[in-house]
Amino acid sequence: MDEFSLIERYFRPLSEGFEGSLGLRDDAALIALPPGHQLVVTTDAITAGVHFIGNEDANLIAKKLLRVNLSDLAAKGAVPRCYFLTLMLPENTEEAWVARFAHGLAEDQKTFGIHLAGGDTTATTGPLALSLTALGTVKGTMLRRSGATAGNAVYVSGTLGEAAAGLACLQGKQPRNAALERRYLLPEPRLALGKALLERGIATACMDISDGLVQDLGHICEASGVAATIEASLVPRNDASLEAALSGGDDYELLFTVPAAKAPEVPQGCTPIGRITQGSGVVVLDAQAKPMTLKRAGYKHFA
Amino acid sequence: MDEFSLIERYFRPLSEGFEGSLGLRDDAALIALPPGHQLVVTTDAITAGVHFIGNEDANLIAKKLLRVNLSDLAAKGAVPRCYFLTLMLPENTEEAWVARFAHGLAEDQKTFGIHLAGGDTTATTGPLALSLTALGTVKGTMLRRSGATAGNAVYVSGTLGEAAAGLACLQGKQPRNAALERRYLLPEPRLALGKALLERGIATACMDISDGLVQDLGHICEASGVAATIEASLVPRNDASLEAALSGGDDYELLFTVPAAKAPEVPQGCTPIGRITQGSGVVVLDAQAKPMTLKRAGYKHFA
Repeated sequence: MDEFSLIERYFRPLSEGFEGSLGLRDDAALIALPPGHQLVVTTDAITAGVHFIGNEDANLIAKKLLRVNLSDLAAKGAVPRCYFLTLMLPENTEEAWVARFAHGLAEDQKTFGIHLAGGDTTATTGPLALSLTALGTVKGTMLRRSGATAGNAVYVSGTLGEAAAGLACLQGKQPRNAALERRYLLPEPRLALGKALLERGIATACMDISDGLVQDLGHICEASGVAATIEASLVPRNDASLEAALSGGDDYELLFTVPAAKAPEVPQGCTPIGRITQGSGVVVLDAQAKPMTLKRAGYKHFA
Repeated sequence: MDEFSLIERYFRPLSEGFEGSLGLRDDAALIALPPGHQLVVTTDAITAGVHFIGNEDANLIAKKLLRVNLSDLAAKGAVPRCYFLTLMLPENTEEAWVARFAHGLAEDQKTFGIHLAGGDTTATTGPLALSLTALGTVKGTMLRRSGATAGNAVYVSGTLGEAAAGLACLQGKQPRNAALERRYLLPEPRLALGKALLERGIATACMDISDGLVQDLGHICEASGVAATIEASLVPRNDASLEAALSGGDDYELLFTVPAAKAPEVPQGCTPIGRITQGSGVVVLDAQAKPMTLKRAGYKHFA
């Protein structure tokens, strides 16, 4: 199959319903914004052998690629609109793999209300490599990493560490556990929560936890020019070690800061885990209120 | 170097001057559009071993990646605004390579008035792989592939086939020739021309020639529901074979259609090569006005 046949058969159907995609039949997509709205744009790439093992179901690879990008839109309070997909296919890729990959995208497009608007499909002499740029919109402005101030409470959504535990299961380091593995393979972008935090003015800063709670909270502190103290015993977890909850990656829950006056409006399912203070850096207190020393704060690529 | 250090040292400076990039310090970029404008978005990816040899100067690889995307914006009449870059680096990549790559981007950002607004940097176990999504704006709407009607003249900018000849030089199939090689390595996006064609209402359809004249004209015909007849003797070339001019890739000149009334307004440096007719498909006439049979119409990935 050449690239034009692949696009025609598997990707054009994914662009239907989004007029600006022009059916993937032009050099570019054309996108209008409603008055008073701004565009929120994020890019995340994954490659076999680094971000996934390579033998996963193509349906799940497609969904994870889309969802890690949707999670960034969620963290900014944006409503997903469309995405651009780069697919670098190894020369021995079978058509059935592409069909399964496109089917995963189609299922998640329905779930999250987003459409394919363009992209590029090429061959590679290396492993499968995928890049996705997602576009969302916000009315007014978006949630940012900067904006946290001393006295704000630090919240997280859901429970942490299960994705890291799920990866350990898949790697044979822990007994198999379908629920944990699912947390790793199929993250849940917190789109409704992010939108609520933005529209109701609840969060002063927000990001998604992709590289580990402590490291990512460090990013909020750095961007905001503040410090944070969290209590290990408050970090919500369910079937994951404290270490995984503090520094495991791939949770894709939201991490956000809230002024006291807005605390009553924080949606259910979110947990206060500490407080923003003056200074810099992140301190984690153990059950005896003593600062913990962590082996690592989170995941760094080619660290 | 970990990804955060690379971004801090080499990529953050490329985001300066574009406020919506937030200094690459957030999960997403925030982009506003001037009233009455629409966004034009395109994605093109390149990978070592397929789109380039791999040992080229990183400065030139960076510029070509940016320019093939800018060429798509040019073909739509868009003004470049910002771009999102995915960089998948082999594990042995040296910092000097990244420095040189970023320097190439910096030079072309100045030339073309565009800024880095986001992206992703990851490791890969395979060859260098790059994907870029470029955003431009148009006032009103953009030039499209559809819109050509019977009776329109077919124009191309510049001269064709030299990029294909330059590639043959680099591959050792022809004697080295710096000028030809430069056409392949460093295409010139026709941004001013595209903008003029859009703003003055000159072109009814437009695209850039990346895969070969005949194949790309076929795309315009298909999108517009028309046929085209071009004369081989009229195709402007300079130091390239007729075959390279008709079906060689990587020219990145503009191919557009013009109604008779607008012909006097076509900017200098563009050449009429034929005519749009009713029907479907592309016919190339030789000097005796006989239809030519082409070995191939253009470049297809994994054909």
